[in-house]
Amino acid sequence: MGRKQKAINLNDIRITDDLFGSYIDKITSKILKHQWDILNDADGYEPTYCIYNFKIAAGRMIGKRKGVVFQDTDLYKWIEAAAFAIAGDMGDELIPMCEYAIDLIADAQEDDGYLNTYFTVNAPDKKWTNLVEGHELYTSGHMMEAAVAYTYATGNDKFLNIAKKNADLICKVFGNGDDRINGYPGHQEVEIGLIKLYHITGHKRYLDEAKYFLDERGKKPNYLEEEIKKRNGVPEFFPEFKNYDLEYSQAHIEPVKQKEAVGHAVRDMYMCSAMADIAAELEDIEYEKACKAIWNNMTKRRMYITGGIGSSGFRERFTTDFDLPNATNYSETCASIGLMMFGQRMTNLTGDASFYDEVERALYNTVLAGINIEGDRYFYVNPLEVVPNFCTAHTYMDHVKPIRQKWFNVACCPPNVVRTLCSLGQYIYAKSDDAIYINEFISSNMETKINNTKIKLSMDSKLLTSGKVNLEIETSNDFRLGIRIPWYVEDTEIYNGKNKINFESKNSYANIYLKKGLHDINIFFSIKPRWYAANNDVRADAGKMALMKGPIVYCLEEIDNGSHLSEIYVDADTELVEEKAMDNLAGNIPVISYDAYRIKNDKINEDELYGSVGTKKENVHLKAIAYSQWENRGEGEMMVWQKSFFK
Amino acid sequence: MGRKQKAINLNDIRITDDLFGSYIDKITSKILKHQWDILNDADGYEPTYCIYNFKIAAGRMIGKRKGVVFQDTDLYKWIEAAAFAIAGDMGDELIPMCEYAIDLIADAQEDDGYLNTYFTVNAPDKKWTNLVEGHELYTSGHMMEAAVAYTYATGNDKFLNIAKKNADLICKVFGNGDDRINGYPGHQEVEIGLIKLYHITGHKRYLDEAKYFLDERGKKPNYLEEEIKKRNGVPEFFPEFKNYDLEYSQAHIEPVKQKEAVGHAVRDMYMCSAMADIAAELEDIEYEKACKAIWNNMTKRRMYITGGIGSSGFRERFTTDFDLPNATNYSETCASIGLMMFGQRMTNLTGDASFYDEVERALYNTVLAGINIEGDRYFYVNPLEVVPNFCTAHTYMDHVKPIRQKWFNVACCPPNVVRTLCSLGQYIYAKSDDAIYINEFISSNMETKINNTKIKLSMDSKLLTSGKVNLEIETSNDFRLGIRIPWYVEDTEIYNGKNKINFESKNSYANIYLKKGLHDINIFFSIKPRWYAANNDVRADAGKMALMKGPIVYCLEEIDNGSHLSEIYVDADTELVEEKAMDNLAGNIPVISYDAYRIKNDKINEDELYGSVGTKKENVHLKAIAYSQWENRGEGEMMVWQKSFFK
Repeated sequence: MGRKQKAINLNDIRITDDLFGSYIDKITSKILKHQWDILNDADGYEPTYCIYNFKIAAGRMIGKRKGVVFQDTDLYKWIEAAAFAIAGDMGDELIPMCEYAIDLIADAQEDDGYLNTYFTVNAPDKKWTNLVEGHELYTSGHMMEAAVAYTYATGNDKFLNIAKKNADLICKVFGNGDDRINGYPGHQEVEIGLIKLYHITGHKRYLDEAKYFLDERGKKPNYLEEEIKKRNGVPEFFPEFKNYDLEYSQAHIEPVKQKEAVGHAVRDMYMCSAMADIAAELEDIEYEKACKAIWNNMTKRRMYITGGIGSSGFRERFTTDFDLPNATNYSETCASIGLMMFGQRMTNLTGDASFYDEVERALYNTVLAGINIEGDRYFYVNPLEVVPNFCTAHTYMDHVKPIRQKWFNVACCPPNVVRTLCSLGQYIYAKSDDAIYINEFISSNMETKINNTKIKLSMDSKLLTSGKVNLEIETSNDFRLGIRIPWYVEDTEIYNGKNKINFESKNSYANIYLKKGLHDINIFFSIKPRWYAANNDVRADAGKMALMKGPIVYCLEEIDNGSHLSEIYVDADTELVEEKAMDNLAGNIPVISYDAYRIKNDKINEDELYGSVGTKKENVHLKAIAYSQWENRGEGEMMVWQKSFFK
Repeated sequence: MGRKQKAINLNDIRITDDLFGSYIDKITSKILKHQWDILNDADGYEPTYCIYNFKIAAGRMIGKRKGVVFQDTDLYKWIEAAAFAIAGDMGDELIPMCEYAIDLIADAQEDDGYLNTYFTVNAPDKKWTNLVEGHELYTSGHMMEAAVAYTYATGNDKFLNIAKKNADLICKVFGNGDDRINGYPGHQEVEIGLIKLYHITGHKRYLDEAKYFLDERGKKPNYLEEEIKKRNGVPEFFPEFKNYDLEYSQAHIEPVKQKEAVGHAVRDMYMCSAMADIAAELEDIEYEKACKAIWNNMTKRRMYITGGIGSSGFRERFTTDFDLPNATNYSETCASIGLMMFGQRMTNLTGDASFYDEVERALYNTVLAGINIEGDRYFYVNPLEVVPNFCTAHTYMDHVKPIRQKWFNVACCPPNVVRTLCSLGQYIYAKSDDAIYINEFISSNMETKINNTKIKLSMDSKLLTSGKVNLEIETSNDFRLGIRIPWYVEDTEIYNGKNKINFESKNSYANIYLKKGLHDINIFFSIKPRWYAANNDVRADAGKMALMKGPIVYCLEEIDNGSHLSEIYVDADTELVEEKAMDNLAGNIPVISYDAYRIKNDKINEDELYGSVGTKKENVHLKAIAYSQWENRGEGEMMVWQKSFFK
């Protein structure tokens, strides 16, 4: 029991990867400044009112606070991303902006520690009265995460003190007893922030408060339900919250009793991440059981092959087992980020690397699709099949955009994907008292200590092409290296110099033992492009196949394969040819080409909606690219699941 | 120009049909009384507050008026249905209820003619201030339709006088000039009511007012837009109307300039029905052109093979050309009723029977599916493909119910389908100065006069089985009979006694000329079951086929064919065998059986979500039933479009 692994400080990791490095370079050199301008209401963008609101709350300006109730979090996530960039030596220029923002936040904080521009300015008498919709605790959680990241990155604790003051207030206001609010957030997140604050400060009250929120959640009488009754069921901030169902925010039963991934996907992932942390910190078996049950239900019943979750276009939420429509789904970028957070913590908790199979799936596909190769356009929603003409505003497809957007009214995803990429190092490496773990094969350099052993590691990964991963390692003492063996690898050989290593595999790790000194490790993963089918219960994918090589899900785009992709039929036996990557896409991911058929009806008139059946079968040659790279060359049809041609 | 046909009074028609007659018998003998109880808040049903509200408005009770703002219309549609039943000699027992209701309505009417229980009781100072959401004119329209129907049925004009008084007030309040509101309804319907009132009273001001509403609609500055601005965009009755788009209520441009079927489908159909009436009454070429353009766009681009319209599950609306998803669609029963109303008027206007091809498609499939064979359960939403487990509340499938419901909060469909079936005679026959037209082949008796010619006609239709239709006709003078030749008929032969008639075909009618006396006409329609494909632009149906025989769309149900219908593949050449109808379904519609394949993946584990591709192909024998009859034998999967097996 207890935490089996922990993250390595981002200050000690540098990403050099072809694929992710190209995004991170753009983000740190350009995009974070660009997003800063947006938060400052740059020309050419809808005003976000983000900094504007803080100025008012700080008393530097007079006016009404504007934007969505949780607008503050965009700034917090931005600071967190900036802090990760600073930690990685890529963000020195961002420090003045961060300092400016932190001063502003300090001024916006009330004397008792309260910090939320909406309630401070617009509704000071309504604090903590609308936990269902008000997002106060959610906002505090993001603030705490940002403060912790900034402190790790810079050593400067000004922001941390703001966060502690706010957290102390929350501990005072919420908890057991008649003198406190016996409630919990409608949108989970503060639990994660409090746990991080516990890690950096060692103050156990923060951990206890996080556990309080999780333990109290869903108890009868139900706090959120009672709160809604007090408002006679009338939503205050979100009209669409009429007929609120408690499952939406996982408050229908206590989290520890939950066995399925339900409701709003981001809420669920943030809750589960905190639960996994609690399970590790407090060695809580019941929490661990619940986490495993929810993880299994999600990854074996309710997840897209791209690692997308939340298949309901309405309310960004989970639906039911195997209900995975490909065109109408939500699969929010933030939800897959949440899946990564949850999965990482599950490996930390259990020492089992297989959770990383799904972390990697989400990262390489849905999360990376969330941002364009220039870094300045974003997907909030990630369908697996798109016909641009059908993505009509004000209809059931209102949420699906066929091209990445500059920004959003509710702009959680752009800063979230940016902070995730800037903290990628924490998903690559982890450590325990006696070992270093490689959880992702992303080229990078890392230097850390376990006990008194100093380890320098340089990884050059060709995972997406040849499958060869080179590790140059210098260690001051003997140590164990756990190398994750991904699910899609058919065969693994590991060499130290010219010597083949016989390794034992456990918990999806190949464990190798390295002596003090220099090592030149080569890992040969055998990885071929392959067709995958979905469980027979996934009606949307019946008779269809999806192409993957390693963690990469492939898709067809109109620009390479013509429109009407729904006419395409593929024989599972067709030869899959790896070709060189497209010049204008990121990361040198091979194109995969193959022969297929196009079958269309040649008896129906153009002007007929329904008519005679006619079958014209043509041979076609298709080019598939990585799903994450779609729509980087303009608007067009896209499709992941392809129809099988059966004989 | 001008109206080419007009309806025949329902007093002169009796339905004897196997299929429709069975529904009408139940409705008139049982269901109308049952619905009356529901409107009176019967035990076992959520209270509708329908009669309750009228009692309060009438001063017979004290309290707040409850339910949706247009709740009154349920009573009006019920009275209209009852009136049709009374006209057809099937509703004598309903007369006391109608009289009671009409007295109540009279008492609820204000002195100036105003009539709406919501605004009279709850918001008297807000009359006519919310045309976008308030449904006042919509409610009046249904009241006028009911009053006209009741007057035709009984000769009693008490209700008509209420309607006239209300219409006179509307004429006074709405129109050109600074002393009147230059507005129009957010939900069209009053136009239809006013035109019917014009027909029965001859007062042209009602026709003019209907045209005023249609002409004013969509003009700049936009009345609805300005009204929304006055409320600062905050919805008053329907939170989901935040970000209202004018296209939703066809108010983005003037109706006469519209070329596409857009927005809320019921609103559009009611608007177009009124436009077709205006085109006929006023010989308005521009109105006729607009009607034809919208009709063509709808039926050739935006309609399901079942005659369902409004493919967006969100907001019950049209989307864009060829966007016709099969599982998430709305296809409201009321929208297809609206399509029938529009199509009937287009045939009336043009004398072209081909509009009836789509009227018939809607009637036999989506509209009839709206009601169970007992008459007491209803579908509001009509998908073409259902997996019951996936119809989850609070998700993107919230609107789709896998089983017919007892009633609805917004209960437009149940009384609407009932009033449509009770007025079916008007869809079967029509007349002009010199001719009788048979537009639908539904067994029935009819007696009418054209000029001084008395015609008695008895139709025995075997359209759905052998395709033979027998007409026994007695006429007091020579006349022309126009027999519609449906689109799906391959060959038509018509005999008078033993003599084959050489008929000329025009506007999809076979015209035959009958002399004074008795005639025994036999029409032999050659109709075979056939597979149909959708236009290649309908991505949802690519590589799929749907089975029809005549107007009947067939579907597969789980009870006959097992679950996982998505695994089924059909060879277009498979032999289609007509079998006897199922005993427990309505109307003796043949079952069609055929061989097919089931292809499933036999390499994937039950516990795997994504895995290897494996192909197990089985021979299966399927039984297809009429779409309208699905879910009469319990909950289960259903599917219309079936995958083609290609060689």
